[in-house]
Amino acid sequence: METELNLDRLFSPDPAVRDIARRIYQSIKDLPIISPHGHVDPALLSDNKNFPDPARLFIVLDHYLFRMLYSQGIKLESLGIPVTDGSVVESDPRKIWQLFAENFFLFRGTPSSIWLAYEFGVVFGIKEKLTGNNAQKIYDQIQEKINSPEFLPRALFDRFNIEVLSTTDSPADSLEHHKKIRESVWGKKVIPCFRPDGVTDLSNSRWKSNINALEKVVGYEIDSYLKFLQALAERRAFFKEMGATSTDHGVFSPYTHELSVNEAETIFQKALNGKAELKDARLFDAHMLMKMAEMSIDDGLVMQIHPGSFRNHNPVIYERFGPDKGCDIPLQTEYTLNLKELLNKYGNNPALTIIVFTLDETTYSRELAPLAGHYPAMKLGPAWWFHDSIEGMIRFRRMATETAGFYNTVGFNDDTRAFVSIPARHDLARRIDSNYLAELVCKHILSLDEAMELAVDLTYNLVRKTYKL
Amino acid sequence: METELNLDRLFSPDPAVRDIARRIYQSIKDLPIISPHGHVDPALLSDNKNFPDPARLFIVLDHYLFRMLYSQGIKLESLGIPVTDGSVVESDPRKIWQLFAENFFLFRGTPSSIWLAYEFGVVFGIKEKLTGNNAQKIYDQIQEKINSPEFLPRALFDRFNIEVLSTTDSPADSLEHHKKIRESVWGKKVIPCFRPDGVTDLSNSRWKSNINALEKVVGYEIDSYLKFLQALAERRAFFKEMGATSTDHGVFSPYTHELSVNEAETIFQKALNGKAELKDARLFDAHMLMKMAEMSIDDGLVMQIHPGSFRNHNPVIYERFGPDKGCDIPLQTEYTLNLKELLNKYGNNPALTIIVFTLDETTYSRELAPLAGHYPAMKLGPAWWFHDSIEGMIRFRRMATETAGFYNTVGFNDDTRAFVSIPARHDLARRIDSNYLAELVCKHILSLDEAMELAVDLTYNLVRKTYKL
Amino acid sequence: METELNLDRLFSPDPAVRDIARRIYQSIKDLPIISPHGHVDPALLSDNKNFPDPARLFIVLDHYLFRMLYSQGIKLESLGIPVTDGSVVESDPRKIWQLFAENFFLFRGTPSSIWLAYEFGVVFGIKEKLTGNNAQKIYDQIQEKINSPEFLPRALFDRFNIEVLSTTDSPADSLEHHKKIRESVWGKKVIPCFRPDGVTDLSNSRWKSNINALEKVVGYEIDSYLKFLQALAERRAFFKEMGATSTDHGVFSPYTHELSVNEAETIFQKALNGKAELKDARLFDAHMLMKMAEMSIDDGLVMQIHPGSFRNHNPVIYERFGPDKGCDIPLQTEYTLNLKELLNKYGNNPALTIIVFTLDETTYSRELAPLAGHYPAMKLGPAWWFHDSIEGMIRFRRMATETAGFYNTVGFNDDTRAFVSIPARHDLARRIDSNYLAELVCKHILSLDEAMELAVDLTYNLVRKTYKL
Repeated sequence: METELNLDRLFSPDPAVRDIARRIYQSIKDLPIISPHGHVDPALLSDNKNFPDPARLFIVLDHYLFRMLYSQGIKLESLGIPVTDGSVVESDPRKIWQLFAENFFLFRGTPSSIWLAYEFGVVFGIKEKLTGNNAQKIYDQIQEKINSPEFLPRALFDRFNIEVLSTTDSPADSLEHHKKIRESVWGKKVIPCFRPDGVTDLSNSRWKSNINALEKVVGYEIDSYLKFLQALAERRAFFKEMGATSTDHGVFSPYTHELSVNEAETIFQKALNGKAELKDARLFDAHMLMKMAEMSIDDGLVMQIHPGSFRNHNPVIYERFGPDKGCDIPLQTEYTLNLKELLNKYGNNPALTIIVFTLDETTYSRELAPLAGHYPAMKLGPAWWFHDSIEGMIRFRRMATETAGFYNTVGFNDDTRAFVSIPARHDLARRIDSNYLAELVCKHILSLDEAMELAVDLTYNLVRKTYKL
Repeated sequence: METELNLDRLFSPDPAVRDIARRIYQSIKDLPIISPHGHVDPALLSDNKNFPDPARLFIVLDHYLFRMLYSQGIKLESLGIPVTDGSVVESDPRKIWQLFAENFFLFRGTPSSIWLAYEFGVVFGIKEKLTGNNAQKIYDQIQEKINSPEFLPRALFDRFNIEVLSTTDSPADSLEHHKKIRESVWGKKVIPCFRPDGVTDLSNSRWKSNINALEKVVGYEIDSYLKFLQALAERRAFFKEMGATSTDHGVFSPYTHELSVNEAETIFQKALNGKAELKDARLFDAHMLMKMAEMSIDDGLVMQIHPGSFRNHNPVIYERFGPDKGCDIPLQTEYTLNLKELLNKYGNNPALTIIVFTLDETTYSRELAPLAGHYPAMKLGPAWWFHDSIEGMIRFRRMATETAGFYNTVGFNDDTRAFVSIPARHDLARRIDSNYLAELVCKHILSLDEAMELAVDLTYNLVRKTYKL
Repeated sequence: METELNLDRLFSPDPAVRDIARRIYQSIKDLPIISPHGHVDPALLSDNKNFPDPARLFIVLDHYLFRMLYSQGIKLESLGIPVTDGSVVESDPRKIWQLFAENFFLFRGTPSSIWLAYEFGVVFGIKEKLTGNNAQKIYDQIQEKINSPEFLPRALFDRFNIEVLSTTDSPADSLEHHKKIRESVWGKKVIPCFRPDGVTDLSNSRWKSNINALEKVVGYEIDSYLKFLQALAERRAFFKEMGATSTDHGVFSPYTHELSVNEAETIFQKALNGKAELKDARLFDAHMLMKMAEMSIDDGLVMQIHPGSFRNHNPVIYERFGPDKGCDIPLQTEYTLNLKELLNKYGNNPALTIIVFTLDETTYSRELAPLAGHYPAMKLGPAWWFHDSIEGMIRFRRMATETAGFYNTVGFNDDTRAFVSIPARHDLARRIDSNYLAELVCKHILSLDEAMELAVDLTYNLVRKTYKL
């Protein structure tokens, strides 16, 4: 079965829309990629070693893929997902690949199938659709490629035309890989993002050891709330020095509420003594969002808020395999009341930027677009995670644009751990935006000139400007 | 006014999409109907008597129809809906039919109008659109047909090409009609489904008499929680023997929580003494979902959960006409937290199947698809009730597919009381799926081969496999 | 850049749909405008003076416009928005206009851009798209027009072909402008609507002074709950005499609950003594919705409920500029439980009409359409505020029609303060409805005859009938 990627893929079947979409897409498809938020391991680019094999390149790190296989009764062990107790899992990449290939049909209609089609077809030049029958042949083709210098991470980074790549890093991180990249002759922009969840979320089971790691890196004991703030401020400064332009906050809920210093200290001491309850942790989270905004006004780091995921919903999987195994499930999320204190205090400041994401699409038109369409500091992050998909992006544009306008949005984020999927994800986003704009042109809501200008804004200018890149 | 049904009805007006939709639909339109969930009275097929008249065939049992007429100020009495105190209501089917015909325009744009167009046009061969003017003529045409042997229920069952029909039955039901059908020479598959709501919902006003009926059928007093469990297990076994492959649970909320035996017993005794409060009933419901899943692992019955309907919202109607009179109103429903305990305990078991339905479409992409896209036991039921409609089905596919995939869904359920509407409802679903798949083909998200294969899976294979038919 | 408005704007690019949409639109585009709900100042039409200048005509009163500019960091003062302390703001309309023009691109893709295109192009005959470069030239063109007698408010009212315009007025309003209009030779129908929020919402900071104003107009002291009810009944009668056919209730939540007279009196006395708490206010609101429905059954006024807006979310703006400055943010809203008491008591009465609006689109298909598709008294208001937009209206039709039918909806409301935007908003609504109906025709869900009839019903008949105009 041939799998030449159709040049009009993802565009409307309507000829008028498709023709305009094609023109718009042509004008943006080769713009550099700016990836202001993601989870690529910086070691990949500092070490610049060959990827090991197709299974570990595509499957073992991609929870989008193995969660779907798991949902259909395939054991994670048979896909080579390592278990926390170190017991044996499948280690033969060819067997993992074969199992994946035989179940590849499960991804029909999902964004993974579109991303993989791009990665296989465009990045690796594979001409056939993956099946159980051709699995080993394609394995060989990919293996040959990834052994070559053209497929070293830095070579791919250059080929993908990435202008900036932001990783996501804990405050205790030494950023040694970023340092190494900065000092290398390669000289491409790989920057960190300051994500303090591990030390701000008192309900995190590893909170204490995260604090210990932070103590180690700042060089003093964090035995009080004020020392904790000091440590965060120092680390923010260090991250900024290392190129960071943003922070990220993956909170359970977007609740914001400022505590007094005494209240904050009391909770912090409870946490140090292992006595903080869940309600303390939630209050402290709410408070720390306020403090992070305050620090952002000082240091200029752009603040990102990613709320509403119930992490590790399945304890059976969490205990055996650890976090990020496809069992984070979205929750209903409320922004109008929860963000009020933050926006009331800091939202009128146009020098501050707070980018809000959601997994609850009902809030696009009801809460997020009206908030972003009013408060100067607030901007809307793109369709996130489960909604970083064809239909998900279309719903985002249709529900957010009319109230927030285009200029209170911030372009695309790939948010990926899978390095090779970066150009695939940006290509999908560019196609969806091109098609959306083409529809507006064909309905005479925009002129073609306006659409062409907007396409560049949505792809390149807005992300660069908002993230200060 | 002619009412020849257009062969391309419900397909996209876009010629490219329509052509592919037509091809896909051609390949599935004659597949047998599998109806794994519905409310047809089995007596209809065991007695196999002629339907009485057009009014009682189409209107008096169909709450979709009379609720709409009621909403526009037409009295239910004038439509022949029987009142609980037995006082007189309209009994002339010609008058009821005339009233219906004169108000037939109210159904414009509703799925009822599509189903009725099929029933009138395809099943009864009526060539005109029903109006006040031609009402009596059409009444005569239908009456003549339903008097003929070709329109006896079993003849229609055969003509509709139904492979399996599941009814929905209370645990105390003797299933005598199912027995009679099994013993008849006709030999078609009409199977029961075990729906214990009447005895598991302690807040049901008829709970005690339902328990009494259950006692009668099991032959012992149900004076304890453990005897209650025993009775349910026995009836499940009996249902299974009579062909059942599934259970159904119409709960107020999908909350799941396991009680200790003592806690469950305490609540059960309160209920026996008429002292159970609403919060006891809700806890017991949550517990019984856990127990039903446990029994399903034992006996292999597929578990269906239908939550989120506020039954009998209008006491004026409920007191005068009883339940199922079009005044059940959906409620916001939460799954991520509520199903957690059930899924944590049983959801990793691929031998178990839990099919979840919703009346709250906001949960498709936010909660249900992510859950079904992870837990092996969980599958998504099709768009339900108010969403069993053109736009409702499209929204379901668009919001669920990208995260859950097609293979964590279970095909179509007609869920109907109206026997003659069965082929109409399946035809609508097949058309919507064909068109949805055609759109994916035209956007190059699926190949035509994949779409053709998926069409058969969505129509026939998935429902057969998931419901173990 | 030319800005001739395309005759097919907002229609589907699909030629088949577009052609039908055009035909349907042709048949309704010249129907008179009925505007049963809005916020035009009646003084405009009683005084009938020239509008002052383009800035004050288009920008200073339109919170849709200045909130978007504010969200992008433009100060409200620089747009001439008056501050409550009377300090100086920009007073040069040419400067305001220039700033607006330079930022006009921010409205791309928003309904404001469509309305303004109509207002500029059709109402004012401006041929170019507004930019910073041509801002002063266009200013001159508009100024010349608004100085002419053809652009006096009454002349525009006639030219816009408005049959009825309803304003929104507080119970203490003398309705002197309405009186003056009724007594004038002009003789057009400008009617009031009774909106008692200012005296029913005990949490309103101006409640006491609103009560004082009401006392003044009824001529007696309102020192008890029963006198309060009496005053409301008298004012309703007066409003009705002055042409009102409806009341409007902008409540925080749609919660309805009847208090005993004693309970209501107790809360009312607390309020008089400045001791009412927020929970008292919410209860009193819930109770007053019950009383207003009761009075509506007596006097026949149609009841409108507009819940779910968090007013004045941003205290910085509220304190400096007052209410209605674009910082009202929607909240999640629940109807099934909240409206139960009201609908149970009054909803079965087909003589009563309760029109319910929402800012929470998730309730269209889940709650509002099922309720309106059952209770005879309840009807669905059109897509409101942020949803009075292209995509918002499409979503409303798609989510509400299948369950509520068309005939439980009530046509379009422009709900505007901006007089000149009235024809623009009705034109947009007519186009969207024409296109929606055309899609149903092309999918063979409606015949063209039915669609043509429905188009007139949705545009003219339903609003006239439901609002008793």
